[in-house]
Amino acid sequence: MATEFECYYDPLSQPCRTVLLLLKLTNAPHKIKWMDMSKDEHMTSEFMALNPFHQLPIIVHGDFVLTESTAIAKYITSTVQCDDHWYPADIQKRARVDEYLAHHPTGIRRGCRWVAKKFVFIESMTGKPVPQEEKEAAYAEFQEVLDGFENYFLKRGPFIIGNKISIADLFAVSEVIQAQIGGRDFLSDRPKLEEWVQRVKKETNPHFDDVFKTTSDFIATIAK
Amino acid sequence: MATEFECYYDPLSQPCRTVLLLLKLTNAPHKIKWMDMSKDEHMTSEFMALNPFHQLPIIVHGDFVLTESTAIAKYITSTVQCDDHWYPADIQKRARVDEYLAHHPTGIRRGCRWVAKKFVFIESMTGKPVPQEEKEAAYAEFQEVLDGFENYFLKRGPFIIGNKISIADLFAVSEVIQAQIGGRDFLSDRPKLEEWVQRVKKETNPHFDDVFKTTSDFIATIAK
Repeated sequence: MATEFECYYDPLSQPCRTVLLLLKLTNAPHKIKWMDMSKDEHMTSEFMALNPFHQLPIIVHGDFVLTESTAIAKYITSTVQCDDHWYPADIQKRARVDEYLAHHPTGIRRGCRWVAKKFVFIESMTGKPVPQEEKEAAYAEFQEVLDGFENYFLKRGPFIIGNKISIADLFAVSEVIQAQIGGRDFLSDRPKLEEWVQRVKKETNPHFDDVFKTTSDFIATIAK
Repeated sequence: MATEFECYYDPLSQPCRTVLLLLKLTNAPHKIKWMDMSKDEHMTSEFMALNPFHQLPIIVHGDFVLTESTAIAKYITSTVQCDDHWYPADIQKRARVDEYLAHHPTGIRRGCRWVAKKFVFIESMTGKPVPQEEKEAAYAEFQEVLDGFENYFLKRGPFIIGNKISIADLFAVSEVIQAQIGGRDFLSDRPKLEEWVQRVKKETNPHFDDVFKTTSDFIATIAK
């Protein structure tokens, strides 16, 4: 029997959601170790012994402990029998996934998470309003990031590497969904981006709706 | 005959130096396309057509253009006949390289480049002194980063993945050398780190000294 992945998971973390989505999509045997970062469960000495950088997700696979969500995703696709397109063996296609994932932290991830933070989370955590000009600066940077994503990373076809969905799309879509928490409708002005989001959802449902339920419920609450 | 790599290269860029070092170490057929970022040669429409994010290095390999230094390094090791240890086929060893490279931008790269910037480059570019407290804050963050690097990434053996050198060590050492531009001797207080630097140099010379000549000359000038 294949070794089970134990995934340390907080549903409020975008990289956690991406890794869980991939575990489901690849039928990887897994169990979730629920973590609550709002209660500092990632700061305990028990957890820091596994990851001194106290970040989620991590996976435990037998006696192998791995941190960093993008490394985890690649490891899952290499360990589980799954469709090649998630992380293609073809050298140039794989390089396109690696290229996107190297860009991701300072691109889509940075732009999207700051929109959610500046428009919602900082205020709700500190009780203090974020100045409007800071919000607008974050939103302007976000728009630049989306331009770069559409013009460079979506230029090769319906998905980032071309004709097939890969782990690159999973990491990107998870952040784009997060940005919706900011409350502004940025998708209806960007049909190319919106169509890509819909394609990714279609390729990954019902798991997508399941994994992102916490986020979509939250967005629905804000919209009321 | 194997297709030549054309490497767009500025010797003042740490990721450029890492990629060139790897090209030399793996005997990859290559030529350098010299770029001068101080003259905004990375901002021309010709270059931005290749990389709209205007970052170096990029490589052109036949009709394949690739950005992002870590993706480039993986692509080189997959394309050239080279020793397995640079980017091991073993799934868990490879995952350790991926883990380090995912951590690198917000870890060693961030900590080291800010020491060089705050202590030297910002002043030399703007002509204005950087406040001492800003320098000390950058230095304190740098020390934290080095602690994390020593305690987590150097815990498995003489190199990041264990017994063998890999591309992870090349990316890390390039930034540690850059931090020496800051002018403070941080290595003599950190024998574990210093011994690792010496091991990496030994494994990669004479190419190391060749590629880092611009940096070591610069550090020698500052020390005078």
